[in-house]
Amino acid sequence: MPDFKSIGEFGFINQIATHPTPNRVLCGIGDDCAVIEQSSTQVRLVTTDMMVEGVHFFTDTPPEGLGHKLLAVNISDIAAMGGTPTDAVISLAVPTHHDAGYLERLYNGLYACADRFDVAIVGGDTTRSNNQLVLNISLTGHMHRNHVCYRSGAQTGDLIYVSGTLGDAAGGLSLIRDQIKMNREDRTHLLRKFNRPEPQLTLGQTLAQTGAVTAMMDVSDGVASDLRHICKRSQISAVLHASDMPLSEPFVRFCKKTKQDATQLALSGGEDYELLFTIHPNRAKDIEHLVQKADFPQMTCIGYITDQGNDILLTQKDGSQTPLTATGYDHFKTPDKE
Amino acid sequence: MPDFKSIGEFGFINQIATHPTPNRVLCGIGDDCAVIEQSSTQVRLVTTDMMVEGVHFFTDTPPEGLGHKLLAVNISDIAAMGGTPTDAVISLAVPTHHDAGYLERLYNGLYACADRFDVAIVGGDTTRSNNQLVLNISLTGHMHRNHVCYRSGAQTGDLIYVSGTLGDAAGGLSLIRDQIKMNREDRTHLLRKFNRPEPQLTLGQTLAQTGAVTAMMDVSDGVASDLRHICKRSQISAVLHASDMPLSEPFVRFCKKTKQDATQLALSGGEDYELLFTIHPNRAKDIEHLVQKADFPQMTCIGYITDQGNDILLTQKDGSQTPLTATGYDHFKTPDKE
Repeated sequence: MPDFKSIGEFGFINQIATHPTPNRVLCGIGDDCAVIEQSSTQVRLVTTDMMVEGVHFFTDTPPEGLGHKLLAVNISDIAAMGGTPTDAVISLAVPTHHDAGYLERLYNGLYACADRFDVAIVGGDTTRSNNQLVLNISLTGHMHRNHVCYRSGAQTGDLIYVSGTLGDAAGGLSLIRDQIKMNREDRTHLLRKFNRPEPQLTLGQTLAQTGAVTAMMDVSDGVASDLRHICKRSQISAVLHASDMPLSEPFVRFCKKTKQDATQLALSGGEDYELLFTIHPNRAKDIEHLVQKADFPQMTCIGYITDQGNDILLTQKDGSQTPLTATGYDHFKTPDKE
Repeated sequence: MPDFKSIGEFGFINQIATHPTPNRVLCGIGDDCAVIEQSSTQVRLVTTDMMVEGVHFFTDTPPEGLGHKLLAVNISDIAAMGGTPTDAVISLAVPTHHDAGYLERLYNGLYACADRFDVAIVGGDTTRSNNQLVLNISLTGHMHRNHVCYRSGAQTGDLIYVSGTLGDAAGGLSLIRDQIKMNREDRTHLLRKFNRPEPQLTLGQTLAQTGAVTAMMDVSDGVASDLRHICKRSQISAVLHASDMPLSEPFVRFCKKTKQDATQLALSGGEDYELLFTIHPNRAKDIEHLVQKADFPQMTCIGYITDQGNDILLTQKDGSQTPLTATGYDHFKTPDKE
């Protein structure tokens, strides 16, 4: 039997996704949320995440931020469908001698985020762990069934957009892990994007209601990896323009300082929790105006959908094209956070 | 700051249960399921459980049974409200070098149980663990809001019932942990109750629809501990009859062999996943007939609700009464499963 590392997270998910589901399940494994029929007009959305100490967060990560992040990244999954989050359950496996004050601070962060987004924490399970702290959240939401934005609707000619800027969270993680020094302002910006991701909930809902978005997901593993999911489920391919990636100034300075290719890191870095979506070219201008007018974070066109070829191509300024390396975040292939 | 062991699981839950929830949450932390308003007639039920290797299951526990149990004990929570389970999400934290075949077998057990109870597995999260295997399930169900059986409705004079027999799962656990030898038939019975608990779903639904049940929950930590939750939330007390506890013959033989007090172990042993419920005395005979006629597992009257005193009293055959010791299962105060 192969071990888990050799088949990887996605290999395993593909294996279990083949089990049949009843008709009430409009979308099961393979999108940001499961989508379940609730009535003739409404669907229920469900998403879940497990976070493990030493894998997803450091032992000395401030617990308020951790509580915020646990909920915020799941609200981001609901946002990626265009829905409204309503309630969550939280499970904790806690090492016996863990400081009880730590958990109180974790819940303070969790509740602060929950109250802001009108999410009710309705229950959970608390148990003992012999080693690491393990957190799990399951978040439920709802929306009109006609407005759901799946990953599977992108079509040839659609333009590819991303909200906000890319790579900041990867920069923030590197600041902590590699102990890189930067000026205070840049440091604050990058760390905030890594520690306190802000789900693009209202933007997701607004985009979904326009009916112009053909596919949407959130950027959790990096655009290079995430866009592949849209391509696979929509059975199309894509071309990205390297010079059009939205990069923040602090991130550009970070890449310069650490001698890294900013475009490459922006595309491969995870945990940005921005929205990645495709729009029919006829509607693109309208939607751009709408987003600008409503004072949402910027949305940037980074490429287009094509039915040519199997690889996602990255076009450089000089017109040369290279297949985009498939480096996304796979927890089974990535070093520890300790 | 106190450590987690000193405040315990229930101390922590009490702390976090004080956070206010919106009106749509009819019941939050403190019952078998959270109950959320869905429409003027329907409610949604949510329950979650985390299982940790070495705490909730042995490293060599057959994975099919583990998959079954993960889902079955949560269906039991839905049964304890009187509802119908619909869909679940599963999270796994897997040690990197874990055999992928183990997870396939775990999912086989999970799917077999899901298919039997018409539960759809709609999604999940798979991640890496540095140490133990950790499993989490969140299960959703629904029911008519007028039929929900909370823990809080028991009243003075109500009779206390339990389904099936008590203590078998504790016997099964002891057989494995303490390597006790018994004849094959007894062994099979006790191990089956521990490894493959059967949720009393149809019984729970039938009882709820009678409108005669004033309080209900499932027996997960042992009646001695679980009945305390009904007493606390209903603000009443209880008297139990020691000689009326329903005990299976294999369990009685197990207690004899291991020189244990059968009544005490039946009351304190966890993981029976039977239903514990209270009925107004006027309705008791009707319900007993209904259950008998429908070929459900036996239901046994084990005591009654009283407004006298703060302790649950255990009455012996000679009429003597002693306060019931509060020994339930608290994961922070119980030895490991390794």
